[in-house]
Amino acid sequence: MTCPFEKIYPSELNRDASYYMTHAYNEAIEAWKKDEVPIGAVIEHNGRIIAAAHNQSRTANDPTAHAEILAISQAANTLGDWRLNECTLYVTKEPCPMCSGALVIARIGKVYYGLPDPKMGCVGGATDLGALPRSNHKFESTGGVLEELNHQILKAFFDKKRLENKERKTLDSE
Amino acid sequence: MTCPFEKIYPSELNRDASYYMTHAYNEAIEAWKKDEVPIGAVIEHNGRIIAAAHNQSRTANDPTAHAEILAISQAANTLGDWRLNECTLYVTKEPCPMCSGALVIARIGKVYYGLPDPKMGCVGGATDLGALPRSNHKFESTGGVLEELNHQILKAFFDKKRLENKERKTLDSE
Repeated sequence: MTCPFEKIYPSELNRDASYYMTHAYNEAIEAWKKDEVPIGAVIEHNGRIIAAAHNQSRTANDPTAHAEILAISQAANTLGDWRLNECTLYVTKEPCPMCSGALVIARIGKVYYGLPDPKMGCVGGATDLGALPRSNHKFESTGGVLEELNHQILKAFFDKKRLENKERKTLDSE
Repeated sequence: MTCPFEKIYPSELNRDASYYMTHAYNEAIEAWKKDEVPIGAVIEHNGRIIAAAHNQSRTANDPTAHAEILAISQAANTLGDWRLNECTLYVTKEPCPMCSGALVIARIGKVYYGLPDPKMGCVGGATDLGALPRSNHKFESTGGVLEELNHQILKAFFDKKRLENKERKTLDSE
């Protein structure tokens, strides 16, 4: 699949939230190329990206193959430790219930996300699993990082899907 | 690792919740044998067990390798569909935040669990992700299936771990 969005290569000198989020966004473009909902994630540890993944649930035919889950597995494998307290996750859209829960279980240090999801997002949108009252692990989240960019790619993907479905239905009824 | 608990083989003629939960319990015994927290899960579809898994997070060094996540991946693979609306999951302990969220994402039909977990369980204990107000998919859960059996195996495992840690500390201080 061709993707109408192009990857962005940020300066390596300024490793702020936008830097890491841009890499997550580039992963989202990889997802689009596989006809997957374009969501990407990276995990940072000591200023280095130790995991980068994109949504693969359709390709893998596995509902658990979200960007964040794949990135968490990678990061734990890289560090040789399943506890990611010293890590920060950057993801293009607010994590779903499963991925938000995975961040609790993996004891992630901090989360930055792009587009908020008040309907299904679970680090502040629909609920906040990072703040379960009796949980041994809590974490903070900051949304809205490169929000417009991350919104545009998701919107364009779903607009395209809707158009394709409409065209298919028109063809079917002819 | 030897496990002091023995597998139970229920009659194939009475496929009620206890039947499926017994198979989940047998998976928990497999987890213990690997020195993993003994939690097991099975997924039923049309009266047949299409997925059976146990916690492997320590062995796999992967915080996402919980019994339910592995069972969901298996079931989606078996059915060739990531939507598990016609499936029921049986798990020995109330699912954690990640696994409860995965059940939403995989559109599970129904959930039975053994031991309730008011602290971290997210299908009614700490919160109920199966009932997020704006979610497109909701599901019901029933707890307390073979609760005593599922409680005993978890309690015995953690008692053993506490004893081992105590003995290690005593040796270290000598």
